[in-house]
Amino acid sequence: MHVYRSHTCAQLSAENVGETVRLSGWVHRKRDHGGVLFVDLRDHYGITQIVADEDSPALPVLERLRTESVVTIDGEVKSRTPETVNRNIPTGEIEVFARSITVQSAAEELPMPVAGEQDYPEEIRLKYRFLDLRRETMHANIMLRSKVIASIRRRMVEQGFTEFQTPILTASSPEGARDFLVPSRMHPGRFYALPQAPQMFKQMMMVAGFDRYFQIAPCFRDEDLRADRSLEFYQLDFEMSFVTQEDVFQALEPVLAGTFEEFAEGKTVTKSGEFPRIPYAEAMLKYGSDKPDLRNPLVISDVTSHFEQSGFGLFEKIVGGGGVVRVVPAPNTAEKSRKFFDDMNNWARSEGYAGLGYVTRKGGEFGGPIAKNHGADRMEALYDELGLGPDDGLFFAAGKEAEAAKLAGAARTQVGEQLDLIEQDCFKFCWIVDFPMYEWDEDAKKIDFSHNPFSMPQGEMEALENEDPLSIKAWQYDIVCNGYELSSGAIRNHRPEIMYKAFEIAGYSREDVDANFGGMIEAFKLGAPPHGGSAPGIDRIVMLLAGEEAIREVIAFPMNQKGEDLMMGAPGLAEPKQLRELAIRVVEPPQKPGTPKEG
Amino acid sequence: MHVYRSHTCAQLSAENVGETVRLSGWVHRKRDHGGVLFVDLRDHYGITQIVADEDSPALPVLERLRTESVVTIDGEVKSRTPETVNRNIPTGEIEVFARSITVQSAAEELPMPVAGEQDYPEEIRLKYRFLDLRRETMHANIMLRSKVIASIRRRMVEQGFTEFQTPILTASSPEGARDFLVPSRMHPGRFYALPQAPQMFKQMMMVAGFDRYFQIAPCFRDEDLRADRSLEFYQLDFEMSFVTQEDVFQALEPVLAGTFEEFAEGKTVTKSGEFPRIPYAEAMLKYGSDKPDLRNPLVISDVTSHFEQSGFGLFEKIVGGGGVVRVVPAPNTAEKSRKFFDDMNNWARSEGYAGLGYVTRKGGEFGGPIAKNHGADRMEALYDELGLGPDDGLFFAAGKEAEAAKLAGAARTQVGEQLDLIEQDCFKFCWIVDFPMYEWDEDAKKIDFSHNPFSMPQGEMEALENEDPLSIKAWQYDIVCNGYELSSGAIRNHRPEIMYKAFEIAGYSREDVDANFGGMIEAFKLGAPPHGGSAPGIDRIVMLLAGEEAIREVIAFPMNQKGEDLMMGAPGLAEPKQLRELAIRVVEPPQKPGTPKEG
Repeated sequence: MHVYRSHTCAQLSAENVGETVRLSGWVHRKRDHGGVLFVDLRDHYGITQIVADEDSPALPVLERLRTESVVTIDGEVKSRTPETVNRNIPTGEIEVFARSITVQSAAEELPMPVAGEQDYPEEIRLKYRFLDLRRETMHANIMLRSKVIASIRRRMVEQGFTEFQTPILTASSPEGARDFLVPSRMHPGRFYALPQAPQMFKQMMMVAGFDRYFQIAPCFRDEDLRADRSLEFYQLDFEMSFVTQEDVFQALEPVLAGTFEEFAEGKTVTKSGEFPRIPYAEAMLKYGSDKPDLRNPLVISDVTSHFEQSGFGLFEKIVGGGGVVRVVPAPNTAEKSRKFFDDMNNWARSEGYAGLGYVTRKGGEFGGPIAKNHGADRMEALYDELGLGPDDGLFFAAGKEAEAAKLAGAARTQVGEQLDLIEQDCFKFCWIVDFPMYEWDEDAKKIDFSHNPFSMPQGEMEALENEDPLSIKAWQYDIVCNGYELSSGAIRNHRPEIMYKAFEIAGYSREDVDANFGGMIEAFKLGAPPHGGSAPGIDRIVMLLAGEEAIREVIAFPMNQKGEDLMMGAPGLAEPKQLRELAIRVVEPPQKPGTPKEG
Repeated sequence: MHVYRSHTCAQLSAENVGETVRLSGWVHRKRDHGGVLFVDLRDHYGITQIVADEDSPALPVLERLRTESVVTIDGEVKSRTPETVNRNIPTGEIEVFARSITVQSAAEELPMPVAGEQDYPEEIRLKYRFLDLRRETMHANIMLRSKVIASIRRRMVEQGFTEFQTPILTASSPEGARDFLVPSRMHPGRFYALPQAPQMFKQMMMVAGFDRYFQIAPCFRDEDLRADRSLEFYQLDFEMSFVTQEDVFQALEPVLAGTFEEFAEGKTVTKSGEFPRIPYAEAMLKYGSDKPDLRNPLVISDVTSHFEQSGFGLFEKIVGGGGVVRVVPAPNTAEKSRKFFDDMNNWARSEGYAGLGYVTRKGGEFGGPIAKNHGADRMEALYDELGLGPDDGLFFAAGKEAEAAKLAGAARTQVGEQLDLIEQDCFKFCWIVDFPMYEWDEDAKKIDFSHNPFSMPQGEMEALENEDPLSIKAWQYDIVCNGYELSSGAIRNHRPEIMYKAFEIAGYSREDVDANFGGMIEAFKLGAPPHGGSAPGIDRIVMLLAGEEAIREVIAFPMNQKGEDLMMGAPGLAEPKQLRELAIRVVEPPQKPGTPKEG
């Protein structure tokens, strides 16, 4: 018999009754029934109940051991009595009567419990992550993560992609966030940078003639942390040659839809081939956001034209000044109290907006100051246009377009949640497309890129030369699920002459471009295919599928919000010898002005 | 029709003759046959011959374009004439007559050619890696790498392993090589370290209850570079719980044998389940190395006892002084000249050894000073014992055991190569086992660990308490293929009390252990399973399968030997703002004493 186990703790069933077996695992729980001890023995695979009575030499040992000790049990498989059968676990029909025991590792007093998963402060959980990971939910989350990644890999290969590794010690690239730097010992005074994303490399792979690249790629950004952001994270980085935007969508949709369907546990998922494509302008109008949560059935409408002339002077004034009026319906709110509507207005103010106007309606009767001043007939005309009924309320966001759109978007979410309208048990995907190439930078009083300068403008050179820059759209897109942006992506600008022109419009000279992006331009001058891709965030995908709110719940060994690994003690002090070898010195951080020294 | 292609450049065959198609790719080669231009159009998948004559508007464009330009060709599939069919490529039966052309990217003058793969300086190849990767061999190597890794992943999953990611920004761990440090912005004066290997994390995964971990893991070591070493590299990192050394072997052998068989292209591979296990002491005796190349049929023998009394005084003296005499046979060398044997002796001297003695034999007649002095009868007795024949020569390595073993090992390789005895077209694996736990440190005059202090000693606590430390073996092993060590590995010491005792023997106190390895000890005190693993080098595996001598030939974007990425310009200078944020300053490296300044 194997020295540690003949079976795992999930394998034994009624078929094994009478067999002599050997199991190894952790003492998950102990229940003492006066001379008879029941032990749940746990391993990676499951739990088996061990029984020891006064006839067993294992009894005193098990009595003495703390939970989470590791033991090997030799024993005999017995049927449980019918009333003690546990249908919830695969081994619930049997128990193992312990004949002997070997202690592999006696646990000392635990800093946090494992069985039962009671809430525990995150700092303790992260410091003793090896205990935290033994808990059922964390163990399941980390296993889910592995399965999701394996599924994504398989599906990418099915789509004709090949996985390639790109360097982690590399150069700074213009991704926008802060780089991690790594001092070079061989080149004193010089630094490698960790990749914020393998953007340059994946484009180089296309220029090098590899057709469909992907990578489950580690990425690094030295940014302040949030619940859904980590210093290091993984993305499904991919890029394709000789493709249009539609080809990218057709390649990714089966991967995302398939993976989500596989792990959605019965939740519905937008079908591959049916991800809506929503133009950016439409998304900002209808959802007040470029990452709309389509589980929310509410749709924003623009009713500006209704208030060009209105008894409600405030809106008339806003519209007269070039502003807009947007509305979010609040269906079936006839029975909602005045407080419900006032609370919404207060919520908007607490979020920093001027306020959220509203109209109430009950049995066709309008209420509230907007309705009163605007007039019931005009309100009815507005309601008819929107297809609203006699018991539907309406919220109003008015102001400059961007501001009003944002408020309407936030109100749409708030109303949806308050009225419990957000569809549960589904994953709703969409693509946001047709992002504007440029925007007006009010501070600098100039045109600038609105998103990624390296995306191909729609209409290419002709558009750049002949159209109003602010009307030019880019072949750039976001993939969104349940209101989370999983990634942006683009068809890249692979033509140096279009690149120079695009930068010129934003006020950058040819020399600027060569100085900053010379390597890429150089490569594009030696035969570059049209190409494009995207890079959905793996951690966020797993977070959605696990139903977790924090990224740290789906990473085996995450840092805390201060960027510390409490288990390993990172970051730590360096030895003087190390710093000498790297030709760097630590500078005492300056005291903040006015900060008194301690003591 | 798709805007870029109806088919790839590897898809068209005689079945498509008469079809109108669209292809996109790189202009690989052009051949001008006076008014008719033949173009090899290349993409990731293959090559298709394009033809343009004076009827085609594509002709002047193709004539003008440089090779490596990217074009889209619309045309008609035609059969080639029988004498121009090319059976070497899948599309060799057809050609595409170009009706029109779109230039996607016009290449400027190339810094290095792609077609033909002529030798080019490595610095140029690395600077223009995106061109170098277009070459047939590099493209094939990188595709091979991806396929090998995918195959390894699949086989590991078949063996019950699950892939998990471990942190890349982490703490220094005691792996022995130099760490890369990453300054922390949030914690001025503190540093993350990049993992030399995820050793601590994979052991923590076992302590956390995950049973079979693996990862295609990026690892980082700031060491000076060699042909087979890179600053960042990948290993098949794995670890298993509740296993013996034999379980580790049985898990890995199908993965390695299966992967090698899949990509060996007809070369034979040691069968899974048949990897020899060679004890370290036996390997040092028979092969003079702990990474023996078993393709070499020569086996070293110890003939010390034959020279306790000998007419050959030098050997008698060495043996009398506690030294050893080892021999490497040189079969069928009767016809070899005296120069062959003298050259071997000179080679040994050039390698820093005292010299390599020899005996020649032709038709049973011995030659050379050793034979003469030792005597023909005694030589014959020695030959009989070794099973050598009347035309076999013999090389002698004599001296202190370690030195003689090393010389004999090097001579074994040298003789094998000179006599063309190394079996080609095969991959021969073996495990080296039973490494000594301790060795005598002559400099420090004390016992020290001979390899990894964290391996479990064979015999565990009982051995540590009762045996001569220098006789204790460890559950530690190496996996070797064709003379390359792919990895070491071990059953780990998971018991704090045995760990303390093992360190005590090497002269380290309990406090030393707690101070340096407190995190691991702490984890082991809270319930740790017996566990072990290994971590074969991925780059080296691919190098072997690709038949390459340098690791850079199987990495898409490698650094040069000076640790520079010539394409991306890494390492680079940092902005003063970046250094301020990181609270570090670059120190001018001190001038070496006596080094005059330039100019």
